[in-house]
Amino acid sequence: MRKRVLVIHGPNINLVGEREPGIYGKESFESINNEIRACAERLGFDCEIYQSNSEGEIIDKLQACRQEVDGVVANMGAYTHYSIAIRDAIASIRIPCIEVHISNVHSREEFRRVSVIAPVCAGQICGFGKYSYLLALEGLSHLF
Amino acid sequence: MRKRVLVIHGPNINLVGEREPGIYGKESFESINNEIRACAERLGFDCEIYQSNSEGEIIDKLQACRQEVDGVVANMGAYTHYSIAIRDAIASIRIPCIEVHISNVHSREEFRRVSVIAPVCAGQICGFGKYSYLLALEGLSHLF
Amino acid sequence: MRKRVLVIHGPNINLVGEREPGIYGKESFESINNEIRACAERLGFDCEIYQSNSEGEIIDKLQACRQEVDGVVANMGAYTHYSIAIRDAIASIRIPCIEVHISNVHSREEFRRVSVIAPVCAGQICGFGKYSYLLALEGLSHLF
Amino acid sequence: MRKRVLVIHGPNINLVGEREPGIYGKESFESINNEIRACAERLGFDCEIYQSNSEGEIIDKLQACRQEVDGVVANMGAYTHYSIAIRDAIASIRIPCIEVHISNVHSREEFRRVSVIAPVCAGQICGFGKYSYLLALEGLSHLF
Amino acid sequence: MRKRVLVIHGPNINLVGEREPGIYGKESFESINNEIRACAERLGFDCEIYQSNSEGEIIDKLQACRQEVDGVVANMGAYTHYSIAIRDAIASIRIPCIEVHISNVHSREEFRRVSVIAPVCAGQICGFGKYSYLLALEGLSHLF
Amino acid sequence: MRKRVLVIHGPNINLVGEREPGIYGKESFESINNEIRACAERLGFDCEIYQSNSEGEIIDKLQACRQEVDGVVANMGAYTHYSIAIRDAIASIRIPCIEVHISNVHSREEFRRVSVIAPVCAGQICGFGKYSYLLALEGLSHLF
Amino acid sequence: MRKRVLVIHGPNINLVGEREPGIYGKESFESINNEIRACAERLGFDCEIYQSNSEGEIIDKLQACRQEVDGVVANMGAYTHYSIAIRDAIASIRIPCIEVHISNVHSREEFRRVSVIAPVCAGQICGFGKYSYLLALEGLSHLF
Amino acid sequence: MRKRVLVIHGPNINLVGEREPGIYGKESFESINNEIRACAERLGFDCEIYQSNSEGEIIDKLQACRQEVDGVVANMGAYTHYSIAIRDAIASIRIPCIEVHISNVHSREEFRRVSVIAPVCAGQICGFGKYSYLLALEGLSHLF
Amino acid sequence: MRKRVLVIHGPNINLVGEREPGIYGKESFESINNEIRACAERLGFDCEIYQSNSEGEIIDKLQACRQEVDGVVANMGAYTHYSIAIRDAIASIRIPCIEVHISNVHSREEFRRVSVIAPVCAGQICGFGKYSYLLALEGLSHLF
Amino acid sequence: MRKRVLVIHGPNINLVGEREPGIYGKESFESINNEIRACAERLGFDCEIYQSNSEGEIIDKLQACRQEVDGVVANMGAYTHYSIAIRDAIASIRIPCIEVHISNVHSREEFRRVSVIAPVCAGQICGFGKYSYLLALEGLSHLF
Amino acid sequence: MRKRVLVIHGPNINLVGEREPGIYGKESFESINNEIRACAERLGFDCEIYQSNSEGEIIDKLQACRQEVDGVVANMGAYTHYSIAIRDAIASIRIPCIEVHISNVHSREEFRRVSVIAPVCAGQICGFGKYSYLLALEGLSHLF
Amino acid sequence: MRKRVLVIHGPNINLVGEREPGIYGKESFESINNEIRACAERLGFDCEIYQSNSEGEIIDKLQACRQEVDGVVANMGAYTHYSIAIRDAIASIRIPCIEVHISNVHSREEFRRVSVIAPVCAGQICGFGKYSYLLALEGLSHLF
Repeated sequence: MRKRVLVIHGPNINLVGEREPGIYGKESFESINNEIRACAERLGFDCEIYQSNSEGEIIDKLQACRQEVDGVVANMGAYTHYSIAIRDAIASIRIPCIEVHISNVHSREEFRRVSVIAPVCAGQICGFGKYSYLLALEGLSHLF
Repeated sequence: MRKRVLVIHGPNINLVGEREPGIYGKESFESINNEIRACAERLGFDCEIYQSNSEGEIIDKLQACRQEVDGVVANMGAYTHYSIAIRDAIASIRIPCIEVHISNVHSREEFRRVSVIAPVCAGQICGFGKYSYLLALEGLSHLF
Repeated sequence: MRKRVLVIHGPNINLVGEREPGIYGKESFESINNEIRACAERLGFDCEIYQSNSEGEIIDKLQACRQEVDGVVANMGAYTHYSIAIRDAIASIRIPCIEVHISNVHSREEFRRVSVIAPVCAGQICGFGKYSYLLALEGLSHLF
Repeated sequence: MRKRVLVIHGPNINLVGEREPGIYGKESFESINNEIRACAERLGFDCEIYQSNSEGEIIDKLQACRQEVDGVVANMGAYTHYSIAIRDAIASIRIPCIEVHISNVHSREEFRRVSVIAPVCAGQICGFGKYSYLLALEGLSHLF
Repeated sequence: MRKRVLVIHGPNINLVGEREPGIYGKESFESINNEIRACAERLGFDCEIYQSNSEGEIIDKLQACRQEVDGVVANMGAYTHYSIAIRDAIASIRIPCIEVHISNVHSREEFRRVSVIAPVCAGQICGFGKYSYLLALEGLSHLF
Repeated sequence: MRKRVLVIHGPNINLVGEREPGIYGKESFESINNEIRACAERLGFDCEIYQSNSEGEIIDKLQACRQEVDGVVANMGAYTHYSIAIRDAIASIRIPCIEVHISNVHSREEFRRVSVIAPVCAGQICGFGKYSYLLALEGLSHLF
Repeated sequence: MRKRVLVIHGPNINLVGEREPGIYGKESFESINNEIRACAERLGFDCEIYQSNSEGEIIDKLQACRQEVDGVVANMGAYTHYSIAIRDAIASIRIPCIEVHISNVHSREEFRRVSVIAPVCAGQICGFGKYSYLLALEGLSHLF
Repeated sequence: MRKRVLVIHGPNINLVGEREPGIYGKESFESINNEIRACAERLGFDCEIYQSNSEGEIIDKLQACRQEVDGVVANMGAYTHYSIAIRDAIASIRIPCIEVHISNVHSREEFRRVSVIAPVCAGQICGFGKYSYLLALEGLSHLF
Repeated sequence: MRKRVLVIHGPNINLVGEREPGIYGKESFESINNEIRACAERLGFDCEIYQSNSEGEIIDKLQACRQEVDGVVANMGAYTHYSIAIRDAIASIRIPCIEVHISNVHSREEFRRVSVIAPVCAGQICGFGKYSYLLALEGLSHLF
Repeated sequence: MRKRVLVIHGPNINLVGEREPGIYGKESFESINNEIRACAERLGFDCEIYQSNSEGEIIDKLQACRQEVDGVVANMGAYTHYSIAIRDAIASIRIPCIEVHISNVHSREEFRRVSVIAPVCAGQICGFGKYSYLLALEGLSHLF
Repeated sequence: MRKRVLVIHGPNINLVGEREPGIYGKESFESINNEIRACAERLGFDCEIYQSNSEGEIIDKLQACRQEVDGVVANMGAYTHYSIAIRDAIASIRIPCIEVHISNVHSREEFRRVSVIAPVCAGQICGFGKYSYLLALEGLSHLF
Repeated sequence: MRKRVLVIHGPNINLVGEREPGIYGKESFESINNEIRACAERLGFDCEIYQSNSEGEIIDKLQACRQEVDGVVANMGAYTHYSIAIRDAIASIRIPCIEVHISNVHSREEFRRVSVIAPVCAGQICGFGKYSYLLALEGLSHLF
């Protein structure tokens, strides 16, 4: 049976390509999402992509998908660093979740090195630009 | 005159019964809410129950109720640990608020021992499972 | 069979009513103990009340009661914040213990927000004045 | 060409005049907004005023205005102290933003002295009551 | 009656225009002081401007003016970050004092984010270059 | 009317003269107490001297004397550094208490520089050997 | 001449065998003490065993023995981690003292890794169950 | 031209399969290396695999390969958390390096969450068992 | 031979009587100095009184007196908390120095509890208002 | 069957007798090793003694012996305080390891009080000079 | 053209030879300055030597020399550890400055290990007694 | 008799000239070593130069030279910041050691400002490029 995957983008990720291109690159959000969809297709996954700037909506989405997806790829943006509520949502739904970041968060501000969601994720991938998402999808395929 | 009470559940509390049952028990969210309503009835309170995963909606609700309730019982879930905005809302509305937790937050992760809302609440109760809510309602009755 | 409960007051609690009445209220120690006894009676508990200013005597008492009571309600006063020896005693006797405080310890000095005994207690209640004890007795009844 | 300015109020600012008047004064939210509008008019600015209790909505608004305004005056309320997501939004939109506070945040609780958004704002003004907003508008006029 | 204002510049501010122009701009100390005088004139203030590199002289000056001025605008330079003696002087003279900085101190070294004088000042303004002083004068006019 | 004073020695003070004479001197406990009594006599005080190694007994003593003495001179020894229970006892009895130490605690181990009782004492004196007690008695005479 | 040794057990050690057997083993307090006595006998020591839950009594005992024993083996239990008063007593009596623990305190809670008495003891032994005491006696024999 | 890749295993990685299989899995070191070689082959890379328990040898190896490889995949084991010398070696050779971990280091001891090499690596991947290496090789292919 | 004593007042002490009278009392600086002189006379000391707001002048004074005085009574005001330069001056001149404070610095802001000069002083006295100075003079007489 | 024991000395231990004799004594490394061998013989152990200054070689040795010894006595010297790699090696080989130190590390520099290997050792012994090793061998005999 | 060098001595350096000779040696200030002058002469430098106990005067001097010297050798004494104002002065004048200390500051009190001026100096030299100055002059010659 | 000096380079120093030339300069390792040799010759020293990336080998070298050299010049590279083992080696051999760094470590990452070896060295020199070594040799000549 086809695996179903949710790719979830947190706050300000929708501005990628436009925002701080020295860090995040110039490729547009839409274009990256197309690559994600194509990669999911190659891996035989049903893939939904979701973006929100709202912590509450992200939790709503994670809860809503809990019967309907087999894995989550999550770039929680700034919420990575303090949203214990999202952490709890990930732990509550008991679906493997991969934390991804476009940039190498470890070579930026000190506060970006702390991830409150990492301990409840299955794995983390960061620093590969848009490929972080694609590698995460592939990584998920090994966990299924 | 009958006292009016708002019982407010924060993020992921709606998954109780399903989420980490070793910590939160197996009783459903609906069933717990029924017990809360029954207890409020016994104490002669009008009782509204509200749940949201959104920090902003919780603040909206607290503000909206400020002319209409006499007390608040609040399980702010993970927001307990960092939402200064909810803290400010509780302080702003000047209605006695009781902080509750289902589990004993002190025997879990270190970060769960910090409550930013505790200093502006009237009292705290934790560790009694669903009874935390019922004890809080009773506690409120002593503060009226 | 009737449950037996020990209510234990730590250092300086015996001065309640006289000491810092703005924080602890004006009701006397004896009067509060009478309310505790009456409440225990209503709940069908045998209830012993004990006070000591001595860390060692409190530990002696906890050890001595370990075959003879079914639950403990404990306001450890200042020992709450540093007595690992009392913590160990509570953990050793394996009887559910409820931590109570008369005042809301979270809106006072920073050091009063740390409880070294909380992780080995079953639940905590604070901020309800003398009612903190009564709610704790009722809370215990749900844990039996 | 007329400059366009967004004045954005964060959580609980809408209760000003009613909430802790010893700190925030007694003038109503509406009245303060009228003064802001009049001041913007004097300076020759088009001015939109926006308030939300929701972190996500505030980010949405900042993103939405990024093609349409020339400056932002922002009182992020409690989000000032922890919302890295709002910080990232301010940094992403590359429009000068002035951080304002009604009260002198430095003479209150320790945690109110930390601003996570300050490093990405152009300037900060605090402690002048409603005049903090008016001074910020004037300050913006010097940055255009 | 005309208000009297003291504008006080701390250590190294006299080198502005020459020192790190990327941070402090290229306008000379004298030229900025002329703008300060003109602005004070517009606001109807008697204005004295004082600069010293010496902590003791700054305290002497603050003490000496305590019967003679109605407000102080103070850029204490590096002393901002550690001079408790200047803080005590400001608190002792009981005259409203506005803390100003030319640069946005929050986007520089971590230690520049701490101000030991802020809790005893009436307000703070930073990041507007020379206009920080002018806005402070205007802010003072609202506090009189 | 003659003032009554309690001089209270905490743990290990009774070994003075014998214990670490390089720090505490060679004069015996009894001899120092005789000097204390003589000094109290000169000042016209009734003076009781008490020593205990037990935190609980010290609290008992402080409580017991609360109707009967006008001032306390206290060398709490090691309890100075962590006994919040003794701190609470001092605060509860509302009698001026002077904290004394024989040695200069600030030139010894770092942990000896913290006094949890200092904030609830009226004054502190340390470093004068046995004269710390005598100066404290004299200091008390100025507070009556 | 026969050496005299005091073996001193701190708070809750008397519950060994009954308390948390996964950590402390199942052998009773009496049985362990018998082994200690037998070992002391083998080594040619006069041996007294003392247990108290009271910090003050432990200090009293240490002081009382200072003319009468040649070495101390001490398991101060929880007092190990905060009793500076016991530390001072050990330092005052100038008799070699060996700190022992039944369990490996380093593989338990973080706060159990701090020993305030270790700097004034001659040696430490932990993690060998009851044999910690026996090894300490043997260790003492090498220090005499 | 074929890219050359060095896969470097730090201390104790050679015991994988045998060491703490609950964390690291049961597959042998040799078997994992075979998978790495096969994956490199599929990606068209020349691949050398190196293991050492010695910090100095790892630095020697990194230096030696600096003219001869195009990318590095590095599981530095425990050295990840403190070897600034290895960090400097990675920075010195200016070849993209991917940090990998077999387990999710973020859900283990706190000290394993700190990586001193992360800021000088191009990307990090952890939590996918042996697949962490394979994903890193694929990630490298996107950086060439 | 008559002993010579320097009494040195640090920054803002000259405003005593006028500055924060709730903390420092209402008696004028001159009046306190007269009492100091009278007390010194009674004790048979030659006494010079010096005040400066300048750290450098205070050090100059300490150095200048090093051949000419036998003891120093020093209220260094805010410099107490950070002036390592004054600390070094006190240590350099090798004359017994008594640190005094008018108020109980331990019941005020946290930063006032740190004294960088205490470790190089002979003793400390605080909390007795003007009597702190007089007790210090008397204390000095015991150290001669 | 005879038990086999590895005694492993870390960096600089080979200089014992010559290095800081006030701390480590004057007995030579060889002489101590002879005592270790004699003691092992008495206990019926096969005993190998190994010394290296290299962290990597120590890990190699621990790994190499994992099939061949039944217990380890380890004085890791300075590596005790930071070598997580050695810690992992000890944990990986699953053989009981006793941590020993010649001196009482707790009465020396603060950094010597931290042992990163202690949580994965079975027991610790320090402060007995060369006897620390002998007691550890005997301690091991109780764990077999 | 001859290079011009300013050698600047901070607080209490003028007491060298007299002050704590165990740390600073017995050679007088004048004698050391003569050696500095002779060394400067050898290196072909014009050399001015300046000493002050005042932070403000040191800043004045640094500013005054900014057109007139090519290099600075600075022993800032205790100001090294906290004077951000001197740091800013050094950074402002853009002349290479060498930080020197007579003693090895790293083997003394912990607070002496922090230098707030080091990040804006070109180099540091400490521990060589008077030769620290001479080496710094020579070091400067390599930077010209 | 000619003095013998060991110049020891730690990890990655051998890549100088090639590695981060903006920090370390472009001159090759060999060329710098030639300058060191020439300088030693001028000073009349026998000079051995040693480089290793291995902490253990560096300790071996320090130990081996302890009978054969009169002074050590050591650039321990990254080991400076955490190798307590090297610190112990330096302390053990009791030969004056000068710590050098090519770059100004204080203007780089925060962790480079900590030197664990500084307290056991005689002096430190940093920030002069290759001249740091030469100045250290000269400094050593003053210590002989």
